[in-house]
Amino acid sequence: MTFINDNFLLQTDAARRLYYEFAANEPILDYHNHLPPADLAGNRRFANLFEIWLEGDHYKWRAMRADGIPEHLITGSASPKEKFMAWAKTVPATLRNPLYHWTHLELARYFGIFRLLDEHSAETVWEEANEQLAGDELRVWGILHRFGIRALCTTDDPTDDLVHHQALAASTLPTRVLPAYRPDKAMRVDQPAAFNAWVDKLGSVAGHPVRSFTAFLDALDARHQYFHNNGCRLSDHGLNHCFGDFDDLDTASQIFSRARDGFGATAEEFRQFASVMMLYFGRLDAKRGWTKQLHLGAKRAVNSLALEKLGPDTGFDSIGDWSQIDTLGAYMDKLERTGELPKMILYNLNPADNYALATMVGNFQDGKTAGKIQFGSGWWFLDQKEAMEWQMNALSNCGLLSRFVGMLTDSRSFMSYPRHEYFRRVLCNLLGTDIENGELPQDFKLVGGMVKRICYQNAHDYLQLPEARAAGH
Amino acid sequence: MTFINDNFLLQTDAARRLYYEFAANEPILDYHNHLPPADLAGNRRFANLFEIWLEGDHYKWRAMRADGIPEHLITGSASPKEKFMAWAKTVPATLRNPLYHWTHLELARYFGIFRLLDEHSAETVWEEANEQLAGDELRVWGILHRFGIRALCTTDDPTDDLVHHQALAASTLPTRVLPAYRPDKAMRVDQPAAFNAWVDKLGSVAGHPVRSFTAFLDALDARHQYFHNNGCRLSDHGLNHCFGDFDDLDTASQIFSRARDGFGATAEEFRQFASVMMLYFGRLDAKRGWTKQLHLGAKRAVNSLALEKLGPDTGFDSIGDWSQIDTLGAYMDKLERTGELPKMILYNLNPADNYALATMVGNFQDGKTAGKIQFGSGWWFLDQKEAMEWQMNALSNCGLLSRFVGMLTDSRSFMSYPRHEYFRRVLCNLLGTDIENGELPQDFKLVGGMVKRICYQNAHDYLQLPEARAAGH
Amino acid sequence: MTFINDNFLLQTDAARRLYYEFAANEPILDYHNHLPPADLAGNRRFANLFEIWLEGDHYKWRAMRADGIPEHLITGSASPKEKFMAWAKTVPATLRNPLYHWTHLELARYFGIFRLLDEHSAETVWEEANEQLAGDELRVWGILHRFGIRALCTTDDPTDDLVHHQALAASTLPTRVLPAYRPDKAMRVDQPAAFNAWVDKLGSVAGHPVRSFTAFLDALDARHQYFHNNGCRLSDHGLNHCFGDFDDLDTASQIFSRARDGFGATAEEFRQFASVMMLYFGRLDAKRGWTKQLHLGAKRAVNSLALEKLGPDTGFDSIGDWSQIDTLGAYMDKLERTGELPKMILYNLNPADNYALATMVGNFQDGKTAGKIQFGSGWWFLDQKEAMEWQMNALSNCGLLSRFVGMLTDSRSFMSYPRHEYFRRVLCNLLGTDIENGELPQDFKLVGGMVKRICYQNAHDYLQLPEARAAGH
Repeated sequence: MTFINDNFLLQTDAARRLYYEFAANEPILDYHNHLPPADLAGNRRFANLFEIWLEGDHYKWRAMRADGIPEHLITGSASPKEKFMAWAKTVPATLRNPLYHWTHLELARYFGIFRLLDEHSAETVWEEANEQLAGDELRVWGILHRFGIRALCTTDDPTDDLVHHQALAASTLPTRVLPAYRPDKAMRVDQPAAFNAWVDKLGSVAGHPVRSFTAFLDALDARHQYFHNNGCRLSDHGLNHCFGDFDDLDTASQIFSRARDGFGATAEEFRQFASVMMLYFGRLDAKRGWTKQLHLGAKRAVNSLALEKLGPDTGFDSIGDWSQIDTLGAYMDKLERTGELPKMILYNLNPADNYALATMVGNFQDGKTAGKIQFGSGWWFLDQKEAMEWQMNALSNCGLLSRFVGMLTDSRSFMSYPRHEYFRRVLCNLLGTDIENGELPQDFKLVGGMVKRICYQNAHDYLQLPEARAAGH
Repeated sequence: MTFINDNFLLQTDAARRLYYEFAANEPILDYHNHLPPADLAGNRRFANLFEIWLEGDHYKWRAMRADGIPEHLITGSASPKEKFMAWAKTVPATLRNPLYHWTHLELARYFGIFRLLDEHSAETVWEEANEQLAGDELRVWGILHRFGIRALCTTDDPTDDLVHHQALAASTLPTRVLPAYRPDKAMRVDQPAAFNAWVDKLGSVAGHPVRSFTAFLDALDARHQYFHNNGCRLSDHGLNHCFGDFDDLDTASQIFSRARDGFGATAEEFRQFASVMMLYFGRLDAKRGWTKQLHLGAKRAVNSLALEKLGPDTGFDSIGDWSQIDTLGAYMDKLERTGELPKMILYNLNPADNYALATMVGNFQDGKTAGKIQFGSGWWFLDQKEAMEWQMNALSNCGLLSRFVGMLTDSRSFMSYPRHEYFRRVLCNLLGTDIENGELPQDFKLVGGMVKRICYQNAHDYLQLPEARAAGH
Repeated sequence: MTFINDNFLLQTDAARRLYYEFAANEPILDYHNHLPPADLAGNRRFANLFEIWLEGDHYKWRAMRADGIPEHLITGSASPKEKFMAWAKTVPATLRNPLYHWTHLELARYFGIFRLLDEHSAETVWEEANEQLAGDELRVWGILHRFGIRALCTTDDPTDDLVHHQALAASTLPTRVLPAYRPDKAMRVDQPAAFNAWVDKLGSVAGHPVRSFTAFLDALDARHQYFHNNGCRLSDHGLNHCFGDFDDLDTASQIFSRARDGFGATAEEFRQFASVMMLYFGRLDAKRGWTKQLHLGAKRAVNSLALEKLGPDTGFDSIGDWSQIDTLGAYMDKLERTGELPKMILYNLNPADNYALATMVGNFQDGKTAGKIQFGSGWWFLDQKEAMEWQMNALSNCGLLSRFVGMLTDSRSFMSYPRHEYFRRVLCNLLGTDIENGELPQDFKLVGGMVKRICYQNAHDYLQLPEARAAGH
């Protein structure tokens, strides 16, 4: 029996029944990822397995470094094939890491390759995969078709012109591709050079120069409206933790002006400014009925030398251990008091905070939108079986799993779509085990109905993405 | 087979044997709950299933809000039956939440109803249950008899006159009902209006006005003695975390005086005052041989708008993520140095702190009272299978499970007594699995003896509740 | 079937196969422990079971106190046999604590005693064990032989003359015994009396008095070299948490001078001084190719009265809950920037920090030394099945288990060698379960090869202990 087989991760009869009757055939709504809009619009064809699989995947890079592979073969000057061979050599060293599962699930689902990857099988895998990549079925649109992607949301800077999204909206691609609004750069008053370049660009796309804090806020609102017109219904923020110094617009305005004059904010000023901005972004989302996503707890670019050499998002990030709850509670409460708390999905990176976050979610349910505040699926380092189970158990025990909007890939790679299958198998295995243990009723309609909704329908109903194609600019 | 059946939560033969031979028939000592003394003394009869089950249960309210049920049907003006129907509709959405287990265990044990509750079965359940509630067996005393409640401890304000407890002591009720001393309001120098009203009431019940900090401390001592005379042997405190600014009576006295003059304490002053008060309360308990309970880690009333509309304890609380260990260690050490550390039970709300707390407990065992410092059972959000197992595993690995005083309901509802059964099933399942895995010896006398003691005898021996009826005032 | 049997902790066929084919016969490299060099050099014979088993074991003391055993029978004036009998009485109360497993595994592996220890069997066990202890097989060298200890590293103060290590190097003992450099006392500028005595001793062994901060650093370097000459390749530090105030040598020099003049450092000064010293120690280790060990998160001597009465390391320590990640990241980054980050093993005491630490490790892998930065095995309170599994799962999910250097005893007792067997059984059980669940390939060469390397070869390759005997002073 091959490693990837029909029963993969499904350890009981109940799990298999739940998966094959209620989960396997549901469509996919991948509501948060980092796929490049240009590749989507251009229906990219990948020259080889390196391009589609290793090119930008810092999970793999990180594992290779830990395995003693030199940087030359990771992000350096080696050829694509040399880099692939180096990766193949590391694969057996990743046993028990999610990469080992993902690798073989991806080879199976994209290429029908079921053998284990290692330095011996690498040559054959390279050739077989490359041959298939030459065909149309594994171009971007073919992939979206194969995996039943009903809709997907990329992650975009407010200054983006969204031309690729507009091209996609005008195309024949059945998958709905929408942007998401990620204004992290609007907060960086502590890095005035980058900040000012960005603010200038913002003014430029918004059509009038940003000469004041008020003009800055207006420009951000204008871009929010522009994104809305292009079908956007989600915002996203990457934060170490929330901020709780509130609503002092004068102070924020002064910090803004100083940054515009080239004087970077102190840590305290950054906190004050970020507090004001996050409230503002909350209000924008509430105003237009969007869903706000908070990605909390990542400690990025810990290795500063590597940051200088290789740039951000290259595999030198980790989990932080900051206090999350007081400021998060204050943030949500502040918006709630004025009726401006939008729908919100909280993603957590430190598993120690799972329970606290799962209970925080329950303080702001409004009795109108079911599951209005969501505890999001396991993220980044937590996007694997153990941590997915933790997230679902925390949500189950402290809230309503049945209202969960489920999985998203959060990936930069077109090879990540089997992660929805992975999640569904983990979900069904968890619930199937409960059924066999008598912890859930042996009622497949009841439990299977919940499974089915978590796979697709909950996200669909919750996000309220525009069904009709957006009007464009 | 019904969902609630003889093997519910008992997944191995060893678990079943442990439960039925050693746990099922043990009496109950429910040493901490929030049952209303008036209902106990009055042997309340409940008009319908809403009154006994939904009236004050913010766990259910919270779940209903997350399910999109409007407040009108939760705490609002809808009729009892309408609210029950709304709850019944939410029940299937609570799959995997402890509410789903509790709901069906409670229906089974109080009413012999074994069908699953949902909007279809709701009408029948409502009628059957209400019919039974009309009889005497489900009045309060009947319930205490049915569940074998040997003794129970309520939670009471130091200003309480304990008339209901005195009536109960004089009654024929075989269950011993005792008060517990919870002086949280004595700390609230940051809320001078409420504080002063409370201090005035304290002076009034203590028999002389509180004109100084010394008089304040004396009045609290007098009430402690009064509670003692009425059979009280436990105190209880709800704290975000402990306090470690110690023993400066002059400062505390000044803060007290300012609060009496209407000037609320700052956050730092609150901390200083609370440090002094908690030491004082520790000494009172040590002096009279009581057990002090600390409920640590709850972040209450996060949603301030809901607090204003609905008041406290309405389902808007969550788990905090404060540092616990340094101040807790300092507090216990301070009392230990003068030989005034009472018996203590630490309840923890953030599972991330389980291990740290389980080891803290071990630093102050005195080699006289077995298990003098206890790591208390899973509390509030942690009062469910996963978290009960975590608490017992942490205690087992870092201390002595065999000395554990076990379960308490901590509930406001007379429908919660099956939680002892729930706990016992979880306990037996955990140990039974260990036996089947060879991690515990296959010696049922040895392991079963431990189970039996955790169910009742340990709490009985540890708490030393007065066997004879208290003398009253 | 006896409690300790061939299948102990091995719950599946795959687990048993992994253990007996790949783990059981591997030699042991116990690279961190607290064994007394004098006992090693003197090939100590133990007079009785108390001496070898209870004499210095504060784990057992702690359990006895929690069981209500008076101090007299723990560390007091009672006879060795009385103390053993008191321990035997407590053993059944330790069910589910690792002590229960360790106790019976140790009795089985040292004495072939398989009965359960309790007050009834105590007399027989005492006699049987003592009889065997009189022979040569259970003297220290016999024990090292029996358990296949290829090499071991003790923990030594930089002022130590290492005479016992030199005697051992010159002896016929086949086990390689090496020192490790633990300079915790070099940081204690907050305790000037003890600090100055220690600095004076340091000057004395280094051969010239320490009259300046520079001379202090030089003397520490000289001792580092001396340890290196004696085969040392590891340093070790016990820290609440890392320090992130860096590199201000002038400030450190002033703090040093004030401490030399008898003025203790403030908490802030301690932090500044410790930051500078830890950087310095990092550079020393990098310079000589050593491995640095950080033991993070222990809150020691919480009970100050017990500290005064019984001294440190007597069972009054617990797990802290400090923030770890920001300062740890800053520390490693600072060394990395100048190419002076040594190989490092991070041991964590608070399981809530497992994932954050497991990811931190991945930020500084250099693509040369496989697994250069290690997430160390479960330590102290975490040296038991549940927490070993957590550590291995965190490492697996966030890094490369295959590169793990595995188990160490960290023990003061010669009775602790079965902990390697314990670890190996836990490891094989974990991986065997994965195989049976289909989460690892059913490829015993692949998975077994990893098991085998974790048992011994990884540590051997990683630590690069000198194969030839050291030259001595």
